[in-house]
Amino acid sequence: MYVRNCWYVAAWDYEIPEGKLFSIRIIDKAVLIFRKQDGDLVALADRCCHRFAPLSLGRVEDGCNIRCMYHGLKFAPDGRCIEIPGQDVIPATAKVRVFPVVEKHSWVWIWMGDAAAADESLIPNAVGFDDPTYNLRSGSIDYDANYQLINDNLTDFSHLSYVHANSFRATPAWASIRPSVRRIDRGVRVSRWLPQELAATETLPGQQATSVEAALWQTYDYLVPGVLLMYSALYPASAMPEDRVTPPEGEPLSANFTSQAVTPLGDQKTRYFFSWGPRRIDGGDELADMMFGIANMAFTEDRIMIEAQQRTINEEPGQEVLTSADTGPVQMRAVIRRLVKQETSGDKEALDVFEHAAE
Amino acid sequence: MYVRNCWYVAAWDYEIPEGKLFSIRIIDKAVLIFRKQDGDLVALADRCCHRFAPLSLGRVEDGCNIRCMYHGLKFAPDGRCIEIPGQDVIPATAKVRVFPVVEKHSWVWIWMGDAAAADESLIPNAVGFDDPTYNLRSGSIDYDANYQLINDNLTDFSHLSYVHANSFRATPAWASIRPSVRRIDRGVRVSRWLPQELAATETLPGQQATSVEAALWQTYDYLVPGVLLMYSALYPASAMPEDRVTPPEGEPLSANFTSQAVTPLGDQKTRYFFSWGPRRIDGGDELADMMFGIANMAFTEDRIMIEAQQRTINEEPGQEVLTSADTGPVQMRAVIRRLVKQETSGDKEALDVFEHAAE
Amino acid sequence: MYVRNCWYVAAWDYEIPEGKLFSIRIIDKAVLIFRKQDGDLVALADRCCHRFAPLSLGRVEDGCNIRCMYHGLKFAPDGRCIEIPGQDVIPATAKVRVFPVVEKHSWVWIWMGDAAAADESLIPNAVGFDDPTYNLRSGSIDYDANYQLINDNLTDFSHLSYVHANSFRATPAWASIRPSVRRIDRGVRVSRWLPQELAATETLPGQQATSVEAALWQTYDYLVPGVLLMYSALYPASAMPEDRVTPPEGEPLSANFTSQAVTPLGDQKTRYFFSWGPRRIDGGDELADMMFGIANMAFTEDRIMIEAQQRTINEEPGQEVLTSADTGPVQMRAVIRRLVKQETSGDKEALDVFEHAAE
Repeated sequence: MYVRNCWYVAAWDYEIPEGKLFSIRIIDKAVLIFRKQDGDLVALADRCCHRFAPLSLGRVEDGCNIRCMYHGLKFAPDGRCIEIPGQDVIPATAKVRVFPVVEKHSWVWIWMGDAAAADESLIPNAVGFDDPTYNLRSGSIDYDANYQLINDNLTDFSHLSYVHANSFRATPAWASIRPSVRRIDRGVRVSRWLPQELAATETLPGQQATSVEAALWQTYDYLVPGVLLMYSALYPASAMPEDRVTPPEGEPLSANFTSQAVTPLGDQKTRYFFSWGPRRIDGGDELADMMFGIANMAFTEDRIMIEAQQRTINEEPGQEVLTSADTGPVQMRAVIRRLVKQETSGDKEALDVFEHAAE
Repeated sequence: MYVRNCWYVAAWDYEIPEGKLFSIRIIDKAVLIFRKQDGDLVALADRCCHRFAPLSLGRVEDGCNIRCMYHGLKFAPDGRCIEIPGQDVIPATAKVRVFPVVEKHSWVWIWMGDAAAADESLIPNAVGFDDPTYNLRSGSIDYDANYQLINDNLTDFSHLSYVHANSFRATPAWASIRPSVRRIDRGVRVSRWLPQELAATETLPGQQATSVEAALWQTYDYLVPGVLLMYSALYPASAMPEDRVTPPEGEPLSANFTSQAVTPLGDQKTRYFFSWGPRRIDGGDELADMMFGIANMAFTEDRIMIEAQQRTINEEPGQEVLTSADTGPVQMRAVIRRLVKQETSGDKEALDVFEHAAE
Repeated sequence: MYVRNCWYVAAWDYEIPEGKLFSIRIIDKAVLIFRKQDGDLVALADRCCHRFAPLSLGRVEDGCNIRCMYHGLKFAPDGRCIEIPGQDVIPATAKVRVFPVVEKHSWVWIWMGDAAAADESLIPNAVGFDDPTYNLRSGSIDYDANYQLINDNLTDFSHLSYVHANSFRATPAWASIRPSVRRIDRGVRVSRWLPQELAATETLPGQQATSVEAALWQTYDYLVPGVLLMYSALYPASAMPEDRVTPPEGEPLSANFTSQAVTPLGDQKTRYFFSWGPRRIDGGDELADMMFGIANMAFTEDRIMIEAQQRTINEEPGQEVLTSADTGPVQMRAVIRRLVKQETSGDKEALDVFEHAAE
């Protein structure tokens, strides 16, 4: 079950230099992305219309066209076949699908639905490497699991107390104290204050131990199809409001930002992109490296748990018993389900077993 | 096709020390077994009721409870959820399945059917390590094959002449001379006398070459779901009765015992447990080690043949041409088929192609 | 979709010395081939009729019979069971399928259809190692792809310009200039003249650079189920006819021959056998080795492309857009489709998606 009319992160921009034929499956479609001589990206179906050889085994010619290296058909950036060796007439059916593609915030975004509906304003406001405030590190890992299990994980941080007790040194408070969760456009917003001693036994990444009593403010938006944009900041404890929900005012002691994107390659293959880093004024490369090292360890902890969860589900599907910590996951699934419903005109057959829990 | 209301060997007792979260699939169900502080075992479905994370990635707390390490739900040994972090009310549906589990004869036995029907008297009389008579060695190997193919193998020793000509040095007599095979409760009993020179060109494991002319008496029960309990003994040739069926009287020259158990993990994954050893009065550790080394070699010969057989069947099912050596396999399949029929109220659809040969 | 009533290459003759139990799957059937003491080959279904153990794990006895090494059933070269240990009566159903098998032109040919219809005159005229004219090298590689994709590849050399630009140094002319393609009995014949400078930037394998202006004559028959027999020869350019189709007369400057056979093991497993070599009068072992090295490189280029093509098709079937270069593939598919239709009495369900393009 995929939303089609949305932007999926296909790659970090640095993964597709000129000359590279970047091949990836996104929501079960083979896609070729390459950079034209003028620097712009092109995204095409990675299958020649002739005999379905992958165009990613082909060759860029004329600085912008791609030639299939099986029988030599050549395609323009708009997907039209412009040459069939030894043949003058090119049938109108000789073309490959073209996908809208945009580079923004250091990510390559691809629109997998109706090209006419592609709307750049729907690209989430991730923080890229050119941002002057943060010193970011980045990477990606592949999961053998459905993307919705990763969405579930990222919209409910109660797992921090158990999955990330080692890496993030998260306390039981993450599981026992509920954050504020509310619906926003195409997603959910999760926010909370936690006194620093409840947030972590030592420090959260980027949250340097301070001599003053401190409190953590953390807020993130989680947006279709699976983009997490999270701001964490440490304030003097006195800044924490009574309701533990009202956002802070004034300058924090320190802060960091992480952008994450969950991209389904196929039903049980998912790529997880992430960057993380402290504000430049809070520390140098050493702090950025340290934080990213901890995050990497945590992401491996998640992957191990979620892949095991996927295997268990595959062995035998069942009816989940949801808890009050599932507000985020339930709302996020509902968001996705509604968009899919819109796209498929209410085709109920397209909905999977998870969604019944979602409303 | 599995019998559910029976005891399956899940492990050797030494495989589950305190502190170990032992995970195994039995007849397609994921099971967690662990030892409480008081030494007793607990067997639970290895999937949290919340989001199906494996409990075997969890943590034992309070000496007897298990906490899921994804979102922190805690379960008592009876399967009830006793804690949901951050939530006061625990719904009645928050529980995991509990399986009856018994330690006996050095094996861990688990009942996969209706817990109310679990009957300890149905546990076969295997010989454990604490038995004063025998000096046993033990192990297990996993098969990529259906358990019934291994049952077939173990209820018809005509294969010894071909599969085990090297390891056991079995002669053609094992294939050409039929044993007595008769139905017993929940299984079959296979017995025979063989003059020692027909039993093996040199010695059978544990059957020391003797200066007197000798004869082998061998008898085993094969019981649901796939438990083999076999006693072999060497007697003076003069003790062998005319009918070559009547059991011996008096003390043998030497004797040995083997307990074996075939446990289906899934349709084509099976774990094979075995112990073997001579009487303590017949020799020391050297003899026990030698016999077990030969048996291990033989079990590998079986595995190679049966896995190849399974692959051939998978490539193309067919109608077997049975022989007079198939009495044991045919009766054993009938026993299993009848029990399955009882459990499923005569659902004929549950019966597979093999069973048609069985009556 | 397989033609059954035809000869498949099962092996090079040297792959089955006496004493070897050669096991192979051909069109989804497990086959055992072995050499009797008298040197003749026997081909039997590689599954005992008793319990389906592979006979290739068995033992040749009496110089010509095969004993199953699971329970000892013995089979004559005609497939009849001639011994069941411990049993006097052998049921008429105790037999395994026997396949007609012929050694010819250094290949082992097996007839997978109706044995009564086996007709040795249908064996294609490949060139074997005993041929006095050519100095051949031989090998085989396995593909993870359907055999028809390889047939497509070998009946349309337009791919040389792209897939083999490195190995054969093929020029764009191979793709831009169409050969003559015509239907012959059970196959197609592809022929063409190419001026040497269009045939290859340097040399084709076996086509030594000459001081005179030269032209390449190349002709091959492609026969059911997938046998390519190709003669290539270099002539003085003056010998090339106006129509570039009429075969040459007189002695060439040099010549070479390649025999190739595509044998489906299963739906997406195919073995590709090949020999290649120059005339003995054109050079010694060094030339033969050089040519074969280049051919091997080219066959790997094909395999990489075709396996990638297969994966793309598997991900999502589609409707091919054919070109004028597809005459050979289309005709060859039609030949195969018609033979399959004949065999299956016009069963249209047996035809796959590819065939619709074929007429």
